[in-house]
Amino acid sequence: MFSSDSTLDKKTEKKTGSSRDPLRTRALLLNTAFAEVYRSSFQATGLDRILEKAKVTKGALYHHFASKEELGYAIVDEVITGITLRKWVNPLADTADAIDTLIDIVQGTSLTATDVEKGCPLNNLAQEMSPVDEGFRKRVGRVFRLMIGSVSSALLEGQKRGQVRPEIDPEETATFFIATYEGYLGLAKNAQDPGVLRSGIRTMTSYLEGLRTRHA
Amino acid sequence: MFSSDSTLDKKTEKKTGSSRDPLRTRALLLNTAFAEVYRSSFQATGLDRILEKAKVTKGALYHHFASKEELGYAIVDEVITGITLRKWVNPLADTADAIDTLIDIVQGTSLTATDVEKGCPLNNLAQEMSPVDEGFRKRVGRVFRLMIGSVSSALLEGQKRGQVRPEIDPEETATFFIATYEGYLGLAKNAQDPGVLRSGIRTMTSYLEGLRTRHA
Repeated sequence: MFSSDSTLDKKTEKKTGSSRDPLRTRALLLNTAFAEVYRSSFQATGLDRILEKAKVTKGALYHHFASKEELGYAIVDEVITGITLRKWVNPLADTADAIDTLIDIVQGTSLTATDVEKGCPLNNLAQEMSPVDEGFRKRVGRVFRLMIGSVSSALLEGQKRGQVRPEIDPEETATFFIATYEGYLGLAKNAQDPGVLRSGIRTMTSYLEGLRTRHA
Repeated sequence: MFSSDSTLDKKTEKKTGSSRDPLRTRALLLNTAFAEVYRSSFQATGLDRILEKAKVTKGALYHHFASKEELGYAIVDEVITGITLRKWVNPLADTADAIDTLIDIVQGTSLTATDVEKGCPLNNLAQEMSPVDEGFRKRVGRVFRLMIGSVSSALLEGQKRGQVRPEIDPEETATFFIATYEGYLGLAKNAQDPGVLRSGIRTMTSYLEGLRTRHA
């Protein structure tokens, strides 16, 4: 009786995790996979570890994602794209002042030791996977273009409003700025030192201030 | 007779590769290992592949390097440090004008498709190995500090000569510049597009021009 109850419980638990609320299970798998990949790279992350952390069965995983690659692609298309929309695209789309918003974004970068040591989730996948998997490379490239495009549009809009120096090229300036931002996250990841990023935030802020129109 | 000759040949070949000219064998191993790691990351590179490419025996390898890690550390300490000395430190140490030399270095960046796709050998190891191996992390950090230190010293010297704007902080500006340079190599590696780097060279050149003292 006790034993059969316990079996029933397990079955119920599995059902909850796999088919009762499939969207919730899918989101749980994605977020768990994102955290594991962010912590220890895509290639070093085993599916078993993700299943163990998410407490989801292999059957449920394969119901949502055909392979480890498909799960990885969804991390880029959904989780990392979502972060990029919230952090860059949305604030820049509504802003009354592109430079103010870019400075807010830079100054909002996490300086906790664990975040600094992990680097940028997008750039980590870019550096690890671009040479070995076209599917990752193209998806990551799409997110970089989304990020750069949103900075570029905001700078152009700032030029129209007379807030951003008219002589700069918005697209090239946006690319320069994102390269710098990613470069700093990479240096800080190697140094495991929030001080590197703190100095970067200061220097990127003066760089951004220098893009404002100079009123004589 | 034929068969025994062939055996003798093999022995002679092995001896040449392993003990006749140990320094040459060591250099051959290091350069081959560097090329393989640059092409496909440290963790994905097998020792067998290096031995096959270098035509060196496993015995000779272990004579020079106690483990794959030791070989990897020597890639950073010797090959990559050597590249950094030749590309950054030496030209900046003797220069009469730091900005001119930095522009030369930036404009000398290889734009061939294969180099662009591989990214920066130092930053690749920084991003791959910093979270998983302290030995790599510290060695790579030392090379970054060498690079940033040499740019910083040259900028300070430029300030003393009145060529570089006195209000900039040499160390923070050097770090900003190296972050940007590495960031561009990373974006171009993901895009597999020399055009990204060409735009970067243009934008980094104007950034560097902007560091010159403005004479009224």
